[in-house]
Amino acid sequence: MVIVMAPEANEADINAVVSLVETAGGDAFVSRGVERTIIGLVGDIQQFGALNLRSLRGVSDVVRISAPYKLVSRENHRERSVVRVGGVPIGPGTMTLIAGPCAVETPEQTLAAARMAQAAGATLLRGGAFKPRTSPYAFQGLGEAGLRILADVRAETGMPVVTEVVDAADVDLVASYADMLQIGTRNAQNFALLQAAGEAGKPVMLKRGMNGTIEEWLMAAEYVAQRGNLDIVLCERGIRTFEKATRNTLDISAVPVAQRLGHLPVIVDPSHSGGSRDLVLPLTRAAIAIGADGVIIDVHPHPETALCDGPQALVDGDLRELARVVRDLPPVVGRSLTVAQDAVPA
Amino acid sequence: MVIVMAPEANEADINAVVSLVETAGGDAFVSRGVERTIIGLVGDIQQFGALNLRSLRGVSDVVRISAPYKLVSRENHRERSVVRVGGVPIGPGTMTLIAGPCAVETPEQTLAAARMAQAAGATLLRGGAFKPRTSPYAFQGLGEAGLRILADVRAETGMPVVTEVVDAADVDLVASYADMLQIGTRNAQNFALLQAAGEAGKPVMLKRGMNGTIEEWLMAAEYVAQRGNLDIVLCERGIRTFEKATRNTLDISAVPVAQRLGHLPVIVDPSHSGGSRDLVLPLTRAAIAIGADGVIIDVHPHPETALCDGPQALVDGDLRELARVVRDLPPVVGRSLTVAQDAVPA
Amino acid sequence: MVIVMAPEANEADINAVVSLVETAGGDAFVSRGVERTIIGLVGDIQQFGALNLRSLRGVSDVVRISAPYKLVSRENHRERSVVRVGGVPIGPGTMTLIAGPCAVETPEQTLAAARMAQAAGATLLRGGAFKPRTSPYAFQGLGEAGLRILADVRAETGMPVVTEVVDAADVDLVASYADMLQIGTRNAQNFALLQAAGEAGKPVMLKRGMNGTIEEWLMAAEYVAQRGNLDIVLCERGIRTFEKATRNTLDISAVPVAQRLGHLPVIVDPSHSGGSRDLVLPLTRAAIAIGADGVIIDVHPHPETALCDGPQALVDGDLRELARVVRDLPPVVGRSLTVAQDAVPA
Amino acid sequence: MVIVMAPEANEADINAVVSLVETAGGDAFVSRGVERTIIGLVGDIQQFGALNLRSLRGVSDVVRISAPYKLVSRENHRERSVVRVGGVPIGPGTMTLIAGPCAVETPEQTLAAARMAQAAGATLLRGGAFKPRTSPYAFQGLGEAGLRILADVRAETGMPVVTEVVDAADVDLVASYADMLQIGTRNAQNFALLQAAGEAGKPVMLKRGMNGTIEEWLMAAEYVAQRGNLDIVLCERGIRTFEKATRNTLDISAVPVAQRLGHLPVIVDPSHSGGSRDLVLPLTRAAIAIGADGVIIDVHPHPETALCDGPQALVDGDLRELARVVRDLPPVVGRSLTVAQDAVPA
Repeated sequence: MVIVMAPEANEADINAVVSLVETAGGDAFVSRGVERTIIGLVGDIQQFGALNLRSLRGVSDVVRISAPYKLVSRENHRERSVVRVGGVPIGPGTMTLIAGPCAVETPEQTLAAARMAQAAGATLLRGGAFKPRTSPYAFQGLGEAGLRILADVRAETGMPVVTEVVDAADVDLVASYADMLQIGTRNAQNFALLQAAGEAGKPVMLKRGMNGTIEEWLMAAEYVAQRGNLDIVLCERGIRTFEKATRNTLDISAVPVAQRLGHLPVIVDPSHSGGSRDLVLPLTRAAIAIGADGVIIDVHPHPETALCDGPQALVDGDLRELARVVRDLPPVVGRSLTVAQDAVPA
Repeated sequence: MVIVMAPEANEADINAVVSLVETAGGDAFVSRGVERTIIGLVGDIQQFGALNLRSLRGVSDVVRISAPYKLVSRENHRERSVVRVGGVPIGPGTMTLIAGPCAVETPEQTLAAARMAQAAGATLLRGGAFKPRTSPYAFQGLGEAGLRILADVRAETGMPVVTEVVDAADVDLVASYADMLQIGTRNAQNFALLQAAGEAGKPVMLKRGMNGTIEEWLMAAEYVAQRGNLDIVLCERGIRTFEKATRNTLDISAVPVAQRLGHLPVIVDPSHSGGSRDLVLPLTRAAIAIGADGVIIDVHPHPETALCDGPQALVDGDLRELARVVRDLPPVVGRSLTVAQDAVPA
Repeated sequence: MVIVMAPEANEADINAVVSLVETAGGDAFVSRGVERTIIGLVGDIQQFGALNLRSLRGVSDVVRISAPYKLVSRENHRERSVVRVGGVPIGPGTMTLIAGPCAVETPEQTLAAARMAQAAGATLLRGGAFKPRTSPYAFQGLGEAGLRILADVRAETGMPVVTEVVDAADVDLVASYADMLQIGTRNAQNFALLQAAGEAGKPVMLKRGMNGTIEEWLMAAEYVAQRGNLDIVLCERGIRTFEKATRNTLDISAVPVAQRLGHLPVIVDPSHSGGSRDLVLPLTRAAIAIGADGVIIDVHPHPETALCDGPQALVDGDLRELARVVRDLPPVVGRSLTVAQDAVPA
Repeated sequence: MVIVMAPEANEADINAVVSLVETAGGDAFVSRGVERTIIGLVGDIQQFGALNLRSLRGVSDVVRISAPYKLVSRENHRERSVVRVGGVPIGPGTMTLIAGPCAVETPEQTLAAARMAQAAGATLLRGGAFKPRTSPYAFQGLGEAGLRILADVRAETGMPVVTEVVDAADVDLVASYADMLQIGTRNAQNFALLQAAGEAGKPVMLKRGMNGTIEEWLMAAEYVAQRGNLDIVLCERGIRTFEKATRNTLDISAVPVAQRLGHLPVIVDPSHSGGSRDLVLPLTRAAIAIGADGVIIDVHPHPETALCDGPQALVDGDLRELARVVRDLPPVVGRSLTVAQDAVPA
């Protein structure tokens, strides 16, 4: 941590900073410049955070240097992690396809979507039973009935299930059915939910907040990790910008940046990033090429009647092309598509 | 709702839209242009939303025309509302000052801050017992112990209490102590929390999401209203932009826009918008001048040791100036500072 | 300037930084922390900028501390400046109203708009003869014919003229007619234009780039100042964000921030910020209350036929209210409306 | 174009719109809804733009339907275009690598960088002689001396030259040396420069404004095209968002979107998007995989002493990897690297 003093700070102001830091058990190194004095702090940064140094007289700025997250940081954990979901790996070396319907509507629709997903190369099934919707008048999901459908389809297809949870009170219920808990973009800073998910004993997929910085995303993962769960997969799903031609702006650079700062797997959601069917395949190719550890894609047997996000669900011809892309592109970047045989029996 | 057909759409595509709309009980008016055909829909918009028109062949765009919120919309409720918190009014005609410590730390600190607030003209006391923090290592609030302190300070000062709730599971507890529930920016789309707050029988202050559009903010209010609670106050607290010189960018235009689109009172939080003490008074003046129904401000007897957001808490000289501003400026815009005598006995 | 070394940097990396800085005539103070080493630099910052320190092995970050602008910085010029335009002051103490048509269309329209402006309290006339338009098919302004109209209206009304210049090649022409050169938001980083304006011998009004940080705005002013012209007025006109309900988001905090960082006057354009007539007066009130040194407003005798930005031009009733606001509000913040008598004969 | 009337609009307001449109030679189709009336317009949209319909009483919104650009739109030009630069093609089918130093510094440095670029597979040489810099104290380029160096290196290597022009007054000079004129992000709405470039008789590379929408980018291209020059290549180089971990946010979705809306080739600048060396290769892979028609990359023989953007220039090992990527990845997406033999003799 570095303290930058204001030009008008005097010697007494500088001494006050130094003695406060030393009282807290840290060391302070003063560099007197022509225009400004800066003070470098050495010691326990958490402790300094509580000192409220920014409020002291003569302090102009406080610059943090170490990462504020510890458990998910790559500084202390050089190897990138592999997270297993019902035995299926997500992480370096492979490229995992997760696919399924945005929302679970009926057993038939869910099974059909799962078969489509599997045919395209998916090893994990996605599907929402609890849907966070901007409008209270929009379809909110089937709830536990939807979870039962997902479990039935898992039994039928062998695909482990990824599904969203939107309230801390529902975590145990969802965890009793799901193989991986998804936390959505609107809950990226719902700390009660993050903590509950950290205690549920299931892997967690953590979507980036649509307005969240990469640092905040890693801090959210730290909330999960702090409760003892390091089986976390980060999912980039587009951020909010001034551009109106796409639903969100996929921040493709976030994949290598988050992989460099943290040790967790990072996947991409091309369906919700672009918000339109014709962008899903191009964005999937970009995600694989940049080195994403997986992609998560909406498929639906009848997008024109989908209760949620129909315009972005892939249809037949697209799925054959998807199958080709997830098979042929990963080897160019030194990976291979995760297949069912990669799964480790639980 | 208007359907814009693609240039390559043919007559069959157009007829498919029309017959789908008519089957759903609506009317469709077709305007054939040289380059494009557009179809105007008349009828129940909720119904059309479920039709997934955007997925039909030949459809290029779907343009919504009516507001998607109903209960909080000014279209159906021309008069702007007054919300009473422990009897104290917030709404047109008056300008209400809410002040207090960012976080409740001790009984002494809270009472001292309340006295400072009251001396400056505040009629409502703010103070956080449950704090949502980006870092799991930061101070998270005193919880119920903090609520008890707030209740004691209310008894001592007569100021009704506004305090934050961060989890749906805590709503009943917080509502048993508080006069108004605050929902913070990170929970602006925590729909479970919004619904629980809508059923708690207490007024709700709803901060705008730091990345939320004004429409999403009104939709969040609709979630609360739908559960039978229209005692909602909207609070603008700054949005996230590329500018780094301030913590957030106060969207001052949001005040008149939200007041025109909805009938709910709209207040401003100048402390969290700017994130620094020297911006609080200027932003307070701007908020009052533009016609905000109130402002909510951090005060702390000893900002240099505050456990949360010390750098933005006002200190002595600032408070005297604040007292002057909230007294002298509202009359210039046809309002008067809300005083304790305005409170209606419960 | 502070150099933050990477965790893996070794002693040789640190020594390389130190010796490079010392060779350049600076001093380097090394603070060795448990996790990181930081190096504080003292000396000529321009010199260090050229060293490309960020490329050295082991360097993780370079943190600048001093402001990169000098001539417009308040660090070296504590008093806030007053800029005189045709004798009319803009700066602390007064609040100057600039008004007129967005675009000059005819002599009659321009004179009528000037009379409307003057009746509302304006002492400077705005009006565009060269219009930068997003579409090549939109009205681009009358060019020199428009400048002549402005000069005639100045002769008739006594109001000095503010008008935009969009190309370095036109600066001399525009300066031969105008009392102040306006540089628009799309040219906020057109450095050739900024330099030409700096040499034209007329005051310059510099709009903030719609995507520009406050620091970039001050750097643009530095380009003008470097050519010997410190008669610069900064104009905040809204930035681009994700919010769609307004044309731009007025960054009202930029007024006090730019006034604290630089010594130049700062005014606000409420017409282009909001983009709609009903926001002009509220935003004007906010601008005056926060301490803007002036406001610049679109007026048009017949907005419904305006060739440019008609939807935001004020009409009759609005103008009477504007006259009231600019007269009554400045005294509440310790200013008074600039009147013609304040002008210093040239 | 669709006119949405306000809820309170009456019959006279509707008739006024209709008669104004009909007077202008258009047709107006009225659809009366329960809550709102909408009016679809058919005819010459440019004409309607001049009507200022948004200012009419009772009009709530005006929704444009056709694209506002014509010459660069794919609506009227279904085939995607190939632009040839000194004979080298950029467009569908191939993937063109443009590389070279950010700034021309010396003959030796420029030739060395060109040889590095060529070895990696580049067929076009980039290099800046006129540099737009945020600070007036930063290196501004060698000017004409730099152009001469570029011409000499072209003679030596056979690589056509792409170089930036920053002022309309310099267009003829730069065009006399360059094979393609580059217009940078800060000049994306410098309309005088765009028009001058449109008349220079050389292909133009148009970078997207760092805050520009895709529509504005295409409108800027329309300015060039309107002067008779359709040899335009669009270059995505990152937009400005709230994320601070990267210099800009590469909007990778803009590639397929701009290729769908317009017929011009679209390339990506991974160097300036990310702003750091370790992001250049990942972003290059993403750009090729999504279907970019080319990439433009900074290389420098000695990045640690570069006068401009050293931290993002590729070095030796990176270049070998770049050579591998641009050779192996395009075939996976149905393209091949453009090689010197593809050049058509002028």
